[in-house]
Amino acid sequence: MLTYELEYSRTEPLYLQIYEYIRKDMESERIKAGEKLPSKRGLASQLGVIENAYHQLEAEGYIKAVQKKGWFAEKISISQKEREMPKQEFRETEEVKNPPEHMLFPFSVWAKIMREILASDQTRLMTRMPCEGAYELRSAIAEHLWNFRNMQVKPEQIIIGAGTEYLYMLLHLLLGESVFGVEEPGYSKISDIYTGLGLQCIRIPMQMDGINLNVLHNSETEIMHISPSHHFPTGTVTSIGKRYALLGWASEQDNRYIIEDDYDSEFRLSGKPIPSLFSLDVMDKVIYINTFSKTLTPTIRISYMILPFSLLDKFHQKLSRYACTVSNFEQYALVKFIKKGYFEKHLHRMRKYYKDRRNQLFSDMKLYKIFDGSVIMNENAGLHCLVKFQTELSDKALLKEVRKSGFQAAALYEYYHEKPEQDLHILLFYYY
Amino acid sequence: MLTYELEYSRTEPLYLQIYEYIRKDMESERIKAGEKLPSKRGLASQLGVIENAYHQLEAEGYIKAVQKKGWFAEKISISQKEREMPKQEFRETEEVKNPPEHMLFPFSVWAKIMREILASDQTRLMTRMPCEGAYELRSAIAEHLWNFRNMQVKPEQIIIGAGTEYLYMLLHLLLGESVFGVEEPGYSKISDIYTGLGLQCIRIPMQMDGINLNVLHNSETEIMHISPSHHFPTGTVTSIGKRYALLGWASEQDNRYIIEDDYDSEFRLSGKPIPSLFSLDVMDKVIYINTFSKTLTPTIRISYMILPFSLLDKFHQKLSRYACTVSNFEQYALVKFIKKGYFEKHLHRMRKYYKDRRNQLFSDMKLYKIFDGSVIMNENAGLHCLVKFQTELSDKALLKEVRKSGFQAAALYEYYHEKPEQDLHILLFYYY
Repeated sequence: MLTYELEYSRTEPLYLQIYEYIRKDMESERIKAGEKLPSKRGLASQLGVIENAYHQLEAEGYIKAVQKKGWFAEKISISQKEREMPKQEFRETEEVKNPPEHMLFPFSVWAKIMREILASDQTRLMTRMPCEGAYELRSAIAEHLWNFRNMQVKPEQIIIGAGTEYLYMLLHLLLGESVFGVEEPGYSKISDIYTGLGLQCIRIPMQMDGINLNVLHNSETEIMHISPSHHFPTGTVTSIGKRYALLGWASEQDNRYIIEDDYDSEFRLSGKPIPSLFSLDVMDKVIYINTFSKTLTPTIRISYMILPFSLLDKFHQKLSRYACTVSNFEQYALVKFIKKGYFEKHLHRMRKYYKDRRNQLFSDMKLYKIFDGSVIMNENAGLHCLVKFQTELSDKALLKEVRKSGFQAAALYEYYHEKPEQDLHILLFYYY
Repeated sequence: MLTYELEYSRTEPLYLQIYEYIRKDMESERIKAGEKLPSKRGLASQLGVIENAYHQLEAEGYIKAVQKKGWFAEKISISQKEREMPKQEFRETEEVKNPPEHMLFPFSVWAKIMREILASDQTRLMTRMPCEGAYELRSAIAEHLWNFRNMQVKPEQIIIGAGTEYLYMLLHLLLGESVFGVEEPGYSKISDIYTGLGLQCIRIPMQMDGINLNVLHNSETEIMHISPSHHFPTGTVTSIGKRYALLGWASEQDNRYIIEDDYDSEFRLSGKPIPSLFSLDVMDKVIYINTFSKTLTPTIRISYMILPFSLLDKFHQKLSRYACTVSNFEQYALVKFIKKGYFEKHLHRMRKYYKDRRNQLFSDMKLYKIFDGSVIMNENAGLHCLVKFQTELSDKALLKEVRKSGFQAAALYEYYHEKPEQDLHILLFYYY
């Protein structure tokens, strides 16, 4: 039986200490794959602490709960029995409304900061900045990522751009005529951009623990675009084993890279955010992308990417003449917004808002018969969850029925490029 | 002998009336190619008026001055004897500093407008806008173009983007895998972007009156990117004959378009701006591009393109899901800046500044022996002119000599992709 010494004096919460102990023991193989973990009760008396730690490890794919049996360590490698997501056929696409970020955005604080910037910083507002963006903003982002996402990044690696779509275009210029891999199902805009740029785009099917690595290995994919911390729309968190396998795949060839799309990591509603793939990468193979348009308001267009050191020289050679697409005004306003703690506060407020909305959604669901026997999946990360229904209805009819009851939902099949042939009975629900 | 009735009561200046009379007579062939025009004295007593009209016609390629002989009508068609620009060989590239726009930019006015926008328009600042940009801004630009550039454009045709580079990328997404033509010599950033996007890029040599149309016709070019009103770096104004021939070339095939890069039309220092190719186009073949980054400050990233009606449907189909890359704040600030007349005022101030700088530059030139016998070319459009030297020096030595005397200059050969084999003895001088 394992015993861990917990330090009450450390600033880290206890559950994080347990989480780290177990993770390290698994990585060093002190705990082996398949090994049963101590029951929560057995390990310590602080039940809540252990629960949190286990849920965190589970979210990251380290351990697995088996009903009535307890917790078991997972293999930290490519799972051989790859479980395909079901496939079916349907055509109707429905747009889901965007979240009302503007209602949550602290406009008066932002306006105050803008006024301060306008009053004091004329010279730097009128000075042309490097293509990567203002150094101050890149420093503020690096610090934020260190505090909030536990990522060690140098400001020099960060590139600012007016929206992630623009950053994808820059990456195309940087990486040239590569073959891109995208997730199936997935966010169709991403493949639309790559194919629009004339690039070959291969769809790699999702499984329960991340993309299908066999398909990836047998494809011509050079650049794999994924969202390992919270896949859209399935909400899948890529397991730790797959994460390492993905990094392994990328390191096999010089021209292979992974684009880690971390689009909603700030909205994890329980537990600590899943560690980024970027922070596991020691081979300089991961390009990390995130945006402020989702966390602030989409009417402010500021996104960023973090390049591995291996691509920095190439970036400067090829793209240093490009002008940064975000105006100085807004870059410096964001610096102040982050540095004064407003961004962190705002995120906290948004998370609380979405958590309340989620809980309300879940109690609303109990009022309708259609939800009887349904299972909620992946409800802790991001701004939506999946619900698997027990129903004879077609997905189309199911969606209609659910919307009739006032829910804002979308059918999972809509996000497949190749529509599944059978009904999935799975809908997406947004927390707004 | 031709006689024209001038109306003193019309709001148009007299020289513009004469200009329009002669232009129409040439287009209707009342004045035929090669015909001698009335001497300035013979036509009317207002010498200055005629002078202005003739210079405008000359700038646009309608007429030509022959020393000691007078003015002659030009052929309004493709010139058969195409005069190639000389070619030579050199390698040294030198960057020329950017103009000090921030010294001229009315920062306090802009800040005042920003404060007003922040104080009053919260809802529209927080409302997601269409990919094309704010309708109000597109209306303001359409009105400005009508007043200032004599262009009839509907706001629906205008697309706002964060810099022209981003707009080129959007055009690539819109037009797909086309073969692009660029001017040689030219602004290397443009061909860099297209080749960076993996597109085939054909260089079409410049002649004294615009690009070589024979080369264009014999090439695979589908999209020709040109700056007919003021070519960089030669300053060439594409003659009216070539303009029509270019439109004719584009109309021959469905997949052909012209991108008209009107990057510095606001800085024409004498005469009315050259009419845009877009406004001559009745076949829906010209895409017009311009930017506010040059006229305001490069730290505000707002550019726009005008699509012909034939491309609007395709744009909405392919690109309507893309987010506009310019923030609402700055779009609405620019609306107010244009509508309140500040933009026009600012342009006027900049033109005066550059005119003064140019005149100062020309008097400075007289002080140095190296300029003896040199000829200034294309000095009325844009922010630079060319000077052809009478010298035995190599271009490299010439540039060094001129810079030693304190001039900010660049050698013309630097802008050739394929460097000329002989010395050109032509340098560029900037008015700042």
